[in-house]
Amino acid sequence: ADLRTLADYEKRAEMHMTPDVWRHVQEGAGRGITLAENRAAFDRIGFLPRAMADLDGDTGIELLGRHHAAPILLAPLAYQRLVHAEGELACARAATALDTGMIVSTLSSIPLEDIAAAAHALARDLGKKPAPLWFQLYLQPDREHSLQLVRRAEDAGYEAIVLTVDAALKPAGITLPPGVDAVNLAGMPRPRQTSVPGGKILLGTPLAQSAPGWEDLAWLRGVTRLPILVKGLLLGDDAARAVDEGADALIISNHGGRVLDGLPSPVELIQNVAESTAGRIPLLLDGGVRMGTDVVKAIALGASAVLIGRPQMHALAVAGLPGMAHMIHLMRTELEAAMAQLGCPTCALLGPDRLVALSR
Amino acid sequence: ADLRTLADYEKRAEMHMTPDVWRHVQEGAGRGITLAENRAAFDRIGFLPRAMADLDGDTGIELLGRHHAAPILLAPLAYQRLVHAEGELACARAATALDTGMIVSTLSSIPLEDIAAAAHALARDLGKKPAPLWFQLYLQPDREHSLQLVRRAEDAGYEAIVLTVDAALKPAGITLPPGVDAVNLAGMPRPRQTSVPGGKILLGTPLAQSAPGWEDLAWLRGVTRLPILVKGLLLGDDAARAVDEGADALIISNHGGRVLDGLPSPVELIQNVAESTAGRIPLLLDGGVRMGTDVVKAIALGASAVLIGRPQMHALAVAGLPGMAHMIHLMRTELEAAMAQLGCPTCALLGPDRLVALSR
Amino acid sequence: ADLRTLADYEKRAEMHMTPDVWRHVQEGAGRGITLAENRAAFDRIGFLPRAMADLDGDTGIELLGRHHAAPILLAPLAYQRLVHAEGELACARAATALDTGMIVSTLSSIPLEDIAAAAHALARDLGKKPAPLWFQLYLQPDREHSLQLVRRAEDAGYEAIVLTVDAALKPAGITLPPGVDAVNLAGMPRPRQTSVPGGKILLGTPLAQSAPGWEDLAWLRGVTRLPILVKGLLLGDDAARAVDEGADALIISNHGGRVLDGLPSPVELIQNVAESTAGRIPLLLDGGVRMGTDVVKAIALGASAVLIGRPQMHALAVAGLPGMAHMIHLMRTELEAAMAQLGCPTCALLGPDRLVALSR
Amino acid sequence: ADLRTLADYEKRAEMHMTPDVWRHVQEGAGRGITLAENRAAFDRIGFLPRAMADLDGDTGIELLGRHHAAPILLAPLAYQRLVHAEGELACARAATALDTGMIVSTLSSIPLEDIAAAAHALARDLGKKPAPLWFQLYLQPDREHSLQLVRRAEDAGYEAIVLTVDAALKPAGITLPPGVDAVNLAGMPRPRQTSVPGGKILLGTPLAQSAPGWEDLAWLRGVTRLPILVKGLLLGDDAARAVDEGADALIISNHGGRVLDGLPSPVELIQNVAESTAGRIPLLLDGGVRMGTDVVKAIALGASAVLIGRPQMHALAVAGLPGMAHMIHLMRTELEAAMAQLGCPTCALLGPDRLVALSR
Ligand SMILES: Cc1cc2nc3c(=O)[nH]c(=O)nc-3n(C[C@H](O)[C@H](O)[C@H](O)COP(=O)(O)O)c2cc1C
Ligand SMILES: Cc1cc2nc3c(=O)[nH]c(=O)nc-3n(C[C@H](O)[C@H](O)[C@H](O)COP(=O)(O)O)c2cc1C
Ligand SMILES: Cc1cc2nc3c(=O)[nH]c(=O)nc-3n(C[C@H](O)[C@H](O)[C@H](O)COP(=O)(O)O)c2cc1C
Ligand SMILES: Cc1cc2nc3c(=O)[nH]c(=O)nc-3n(C[C@H](O)[C@H](O)[C@H](O)COP(=O)(O)O)c2cc1C
Repeated sequence: ADLRTLADYEKRAEMHMTPDVWRHVQEGAGRGITLAENRAAFDRIGFLPRAMADLDGDTGIELLGRHHAAPILLAPLAYQRLVHAEGELACARAATALDTGMIVSTLSSIPLEDIAAAAHALARDLGKKPAPLWFQLYLQPDREHSLQLVRRAEDAGYEAIVLTVDAALKPAGITLPPGVDAVNLAGMPRPRQTSVPGGKILLGTPLAQSAPGWEDLAWLRGVTRLPILVKGLLLGDDAARAVDEGADALIISNHGGRVLDGLPSPVELIQNVAESTAGRIPLLLDGGVRMGTDVVKAIALGASAVLIGRPQMHALAVAGLPGMAHMIHLMRTELEAAMAQLGCPTCALLGPDRLVALSR
Repeated sequence: ADLRTLADYEKRAEMHMTPDVWRHVQEGAGRGITLAENRAAFDRIGFLPRAMADLDGDTGIELLGRHHAAPILLAPLAYQRLVHAEGELACARAATALDTGMIVSTLSSIPLEDIAAAAHALARDLGKKPAPLWFQLYLQPDREHSLQLVRRAEDAGYEAIVLTVDAALKPAGITLPPGVDAVNLAGMPRPRQTSVPGGKILLGTPLAQSAPGWEDLAWLRGVTRLPILVKGLLLGDDAARAVDEGADALIISNHGGRVLDGLPSPVELIQNVAESTAGRIPLLLDGGVRMGTDVVKAIALGASAVLIGRPQMHALAVAGLPGMAHMIHLMRTELEAAMAQLGCPTCALLGPDRLVALSR
Repeated sequence: ADLRTLADYEKRAEMHMTPDVWRHVQEGAGRGITLAENRAAFDRIGFLPRAMADLDGDTGIELLGRHHAAPILLAPLAYQRLVHAEGELACARAATALDTGMIVSTLSSIPLEDIAAAAHALARDLGKKPAPLWFQLYLQPDREHSLQLVRRAEDAGYEAIVLTVDAALKPAGITLPPGVDAVNLAGMPRPRQTSVPGGKILLGTPLAQSAPGWEDLAWLRGVTRLPILVKGLLLGDDAARAVDEGADALIISNHGGRVLDGLPSPVELIQNVAESTAGRIPLLLDGGVRMGTDVVKAIALGASAVLIGRPQMHALAVAGLPGMAHMIHLMRTELEAAMAQLGCPTCALLGPDRLVALSR
Repeated sequence: ADLRTLADYEKRAEMHMTPDVWRHVQEGAGRGITLAENRAAFDRIGFLPRAMADLDGDTGIELLGRHHAAPILLAPLAYQRLVHAEGELACARAATALDTGMIVSTLSSIPLEDIAAAAHALARDLGKKPAPLWFQLYLQPDREHSLQLVRRAEDAGYEAIVLTVDAALKPAGITLPPGVDAVNLAGMPRPRQTSVPGGKILLGTPLAQSAPGWEDLAWLRGVTRLPILVKGLLLGDDAARAVDEGADALIISNHGGRVLDGLPSPVELIQNVAESTAGRIPLLLDGGVRMGTDVVKAIALGASAVLIGRPQMHALAVAGLPGMAHMIHLMRTELEAAMAQLGCPTCALLGPDRLVALSR
C-alpha cells in the first residue's frame, strides 16, 4: 500500500517500533477520552466553501518576526532516537529542507547543540536561510540547571524558548533502551515520584513543589531576551495572565492527551482563548493535527500556526529523514488543496465564517 | 442472495471490479466524513405520514421545459468503461428504456456523440421520445477547447450543459487501464499538478489559475443557448450569484464526498439554498441517494430532482445494461412505495411538513 | 443458557426457524432505521424512582369495558404456523392461560373460528372467563369479502375489530411454504402489485386504490356494533380524525418498522397523539416492547396498554405453547418488578413525572 | 501485562472467577443501560484546569466526625468469599492498612464480628487508629431480627449504619456455592418471591410489603445512636425527606445498575440532590467510579466522598489482600495526580467551575 497520507504512515509505523515504544508514542492518559477528543473535535467541524473563488495566494505567515512557508511546526518530542537511530538529527534536516520550524525538546536524545548544528549546516549546503529552531524547556528542580539549558540554547542559535507547563508531574511512561537518554540533562539530578508507605503520595511532596508556577515564568522572562512561548495552557484566564507575565506567544495544548484525561481539545477552546487575549500575542495549538483540513480549521478559529506531534515519530520510524520530509510535504500539499477547495488562498482569508458544526 | 435494493448491488459490485477501481469508485476525500455524512444526513430525517390518504397520482415532474417520469437523473461519472466494456453506452440505453435523464461526463470513456446516438437510436426503435440527455462540462485550460466541447454537445443533441465547478483541482485518483481514456479530450493538453521542490505546490500555479471562476460562467452563458446548470455549489450566496450570472438550474453537490472532506451534505443545506434563490430556478441535488425514501426527503426539502452517482457503477459492474435498468426500476418502485406509504401521491404534495428530525 | 428474558428467546429462536422465515420475522424496511428506533426510543427514556414507597397494588386495567390483568396484549401476526405447527392455536391457549388479550390477524394460518374455539374451550376447562379476543381486519379489494370477515369474527365471539391501515401496500416478503396459508381468505382474490414495463408501477394502480381510506372506516363503523380500533396511525391529526369517524380506540404503530423506513417510534409520538385526542379514547401502542420497563414507559407516557409482536414468534418457535406462556409470564413479572422498583404499584400512578430523558 | 489501573484488574479478574460468579459480579439489570450510563456519565465530564497553580495540599476530608485520608470508601458487597477464600477479612485488613473506610454488608460471608475484629487487630499491630468501619443493613422481614443486626454491629464497634433501600426486591441472581453464605442471618427466615400460577406475582405480596418504607427509617432512628446513612436514593425530594426523618448522610446510588435498568447515574443527579438538601448533610455517591479523575468529578459536583464497588471483587479475585491494597493505592495515586494536574490540591478547591461538558 502507498504512503499517501499521515494515516498511512501511522498504520505502517507500528511494525517499525517495539510494542513498548509504540504504546508509549500512541497512548493517551486514562481511558483515552482526551486523545480521542483531539481528533473528534476536528472531525466535528465542517466547511462552508466559496465557489469559483480566485485562487492566487500562498500559505505563508509571519510569526515572532520570522517568515514561515506554512503555518505548521514540528512539536517538541522527547527521545526521538526511540524510533530511529538518527533521531532529532533527521528531523532537523528534514525541517530545514522543507523550510519548517522545529521545536527541540529538553529531553532530546541528541545534544541540543548538535541538532542546531546539523540544521544550520544543511541550510548552508542548500544555500538557504535556516528554518526557525526553538528550544522547549522543562524546568529543572535546580534553577541553575534550567538557566544552563537556556544559555546553551541561546548559544546554539535557538530563536525562542518554549516553556512547557503541563507535564511536570507526568510519569516517564517508558524504560529507555540503551543508547537513548536525556543527554541534555547529563549531570543534573532527575526528579522522581517516591512515596513512603502510609506517607505522602504526590501532593505536598518535593516533586509537586518543583512543578512550574507563575514565578518561574517571571524568572525566565528576566533571564533571557529570546521570545518566550508558554506551552500547555488551555483556558482564557491563564492565557491572559501568561501574556501579562511576559509570554510572547502561547501554544494551546493538552500535551496530546497524555497528561490529564478529560481535558477538552485545544481546537474546541481556542476561540475562547483568543477572546481573552484579544490579539495581544499569537496563539498556536497542537493535538490531533493529521490532515491539511485540520490546519485550515485551526487557523480559521484563530490559531496562527499548528504543531505536529506523533506523526513525526511515525514518519521517522518508517523512513527516517526522507519519511519526515515526505510527511511534511504531504501536510503542506493537503493544506494547499484544502485552502483552494475552500476558495481561500491565504491564511488571512480563513475565518470562522468558513466553518460550520457538522450535525453528527 | 437476491438483488432487491441498491445496497445489494453495492455489496455484489466489489467482486466485479479490480481493487483499484473499487477503491476509486467508493472512496471519499480525507477521513471520509463527508462521504458518511451524505448518507447520515438522509438517515437523520424521519417521516410524518398522512394515514388513509387518497393515492391517485404519479411521480412525474417538469424540468427545464421537459417532462421527467420521476425526479431521478443519472449523475455524470467519468470513465464508465472502468467497470463494464459497454460503459456509457449501456447507461444511455438503460436510461432511454426507463425514460430517465442522463448527464454525460466530459471524461466519458465513449465519445459523447456515440453515447447520444445510441440513446436516440434506441428511442427510435422503442418508438418513444428520447429521455433528456445533458452534457457535463469540465472547463479546459484553453477556452477554445471548452468551446469545442460545448459545440459538439449541441450538435449531438444534448439538451443542457452542466458546468461542474467543484472538482477542478481534484487529482485523478486512478491510473487508467488500457482501453479506458478521456476520449472526448483527444488532442487537448491535460492540466496536471507539478511541483518544483521548494517551489510552489498548488496555490498560485497555472493549475490553480485554470479552476473555474465566475467569469467562466459568464463566458459560457455568452456562447450557448442551451440551458446551463452549475454543479458543485453548496451555499445560498454562491447559488444566488450563479442565478444572477445566468444559470438556469443548480445541482447542489459536494461531488459525492470526493473533494473536500468536511463539507456538509447537500440534503442538509438545500433549504438554505432554496431560501437564497427564492424559487427563481430549479434546484437538484446529489450525494448519497440510495433509496426511494431519500428521493422523497430531497424533494420534500425543496429539490426538484436528484442525481444518482455511484450506484450506476455498481449496477453496471454487476450486470451491464440490464443491471442499470433494474437499478433505475428499483429506485422508481421504492419511490412510489414511499410516496404511497407517506400518503403523498405527487411530488408537489411533498413538503417539509411531512418530515421530522429523528432523535438519534 | 437459561431463557430468562425475551432477549434470550430471540437469540435462541434463530435456530428454530429457516433462514427465510427468520429474516421475514426480524426484518425492517429499508435500512432498518425505524426498526432500530423502536428500541432506541425506549432506551433513551430514564426513570425517576420514588424511594421507600408503599407497594400495595396490581397491574390490572380496564379497556373497552373489560378487565385486563396487565396492560399487555398479543399483536396480530400473520401466519404463525411459519414457526410452529400449532401456530395461532398455541398462542390462543397460552393467552387464555395467562389472561392475556390476543388479536388474531386476517392472515392467520388457522381459521379464525378454530382459534376462538380453542381459546373458549380452554377457558371452560380452566373454569375461567375467556381472555379478550379481537379480530384484526385487512380490507379486501371487494367490500363484500371484508364484510364476510367481520361477520365471521362477530359470530365466532371476537370482541373487537382492529382495522390495520398502514400495510395495505406492503409486499408479502416471503414465499409461504406448503401448509401455511391465509386460510381465512380462501376463495377471495388476493391483490398483487403487477407493473407493465413502461407503465404505472404503484401510484394510480388498482392496488393503490384498494388501500384503506377514511370512507372505509365510516363504512366499517356502519356495519358492526363491535368496538373498532384503528391500528397504524402515528400522528395527532389523523388520530383525532379517526376518533371523529367513530374509532373506539387507537393502536399507535409503525407496523414494527416493517413498512416505511424513517417513521419515528410510537413511544416517541404518543404524548402528541394523546394531546390531540385529549382522553376521548384509549391509546395502545406497539413496536419494540421487549421488557417490563418498556411497558412502564409506554403507560407513563399515556398508553393504556401495549402490544407485543415479534417475541410471540420467538417464543412459539422455541417452545410452542409453553414458550408463549412463559414469555407472557416473564413480561408480567418484569413489569411488576419495574413498577415496584419505581415505587408505583398501579398503572394509574405511572405518569411522565416519573420519566427523564437519558443523556446518551 | 502490568496491573497499572483498575481496568487492568478488571480485565484480569475474569479468569479468576467462575463464569457464574463473573456474570453475577459484572451484570447490570435489563439491557445494561444504567450500568453503561454509570461510566458514560463520568466520561462526558471534562476538566477546566488551572495552570501553574500552587500544589500544596492533600486529599483528606472530615466525614461524620472522622478524618478520612482520601474521599474514597469501600462499598458494601455481599458474599466476598465468592471470589477469594479470605473474603471480607482481606478487604478489612487492606482497608486498615491504607486508612480507608469500609462498609460491611448484611450479606457478608464472614460474620460481621470477625471482620471488625480482624480490622481492629491489624490496626493495633500497625500501631494506628482503625479506619472507619460501617455496617450496611438490609431490613429483615421480622423487625426483631433487624434490631439484632444493629445491636451486633454496635457491639462490634461499627461506627455507622448504612440502610440500603433500593434492593429489597432484587432477586439473588446466583446460587451460592458451598462455604459461601449469609452467615450474619443464620437462623433468620429469608424472604423469597413465590408466585401461585394465576395468582399475585409481586405487587401486593408479603415480599413487596417487606420492602423498606419511611416508617422503617423512623424506627431505625429510634433504636440506635449511631449515625445513619441511607443508601439507594437518587432524587432531591426523597433525599430531603430522608434528612427530615433523621438521616445523617446519604449515599446516592443506583446499586451499580443492578436493580432498575433506566435509572440515571448518581453523578448526573448529585447536583440536584445537593440543591434539595442544601448542605444539611454530607452526600456520598457510588456507581462506576474506576479512576482518580472520577473521584475528582464526583467531589467537584458536590459529593463528600465516593464508594467503590465491583473493583473490590476484581482486586480480591486477582490477588487477595495485596490486590485490594494495591487497588486502593492506585485509586489514591491517580486521585492525587488528577488534583495536581487540575491545579486543585485540596478537595475543598474542587468545584463545578473546574468542570465542563465534553461535546461528544
Ligand atoms: C512521544 C511524545 C513525546 C513528547 N515529548 C514532549 C516533550 O518532551 N516536551 C513537550 O513539551 N511536549 C512533548 N510531547 C507533547 C507534544 O509536544 C505535543 O504537544 C503533542 O504530541 C501534540 O499532539 P499530537 O501528538 O496529537 O500531534 C510529547 C508527545 C509525544 C507523543
Ligand atoms: C467514480 C466517479 C466519477 C465521477 N466523475 C464525475 C465527473 O466526471 N463529472 C462530475 O461532474 N462529477 C463526477 N462525479 C460526481 C458525481 O457526478 C456525483 O456528484 C456524485 O457521485 C454523487 O454522489 P453519490 O455517488 O453518493 O450518488 C463522479 C463521481 C464518482 C463516484
Ligand atoms: C412477522 C410479522 C407479521 C405481522 N403481521 C401482521 C398482520 O397480519 N396484521 C397486522 O396488523 N400487523 C402485523 N404485524 C405487525 C404487528 O402487529 C405489530 O405491529 C409489530 O410486530 C409490533 O412491533 P414488534 O414486533 O417490535 O413488537 C406483523 C409483524 C410481524 C413481525
Ligand atoms: C457483587 C455485588 C454485590 C453487592 N452487594 C451489596 C450489598 O450487599 N449491599 C448493598 O447495599 N449494596 C450492594 N451492592 C451495591 C454496591 O454497594 C454499590 O452500590 C455498587 O457496586 C456501586 O457500583 P460499582 O460497582 O460500579 O462501583 C453490591 C454490588 C455488587 C456488584
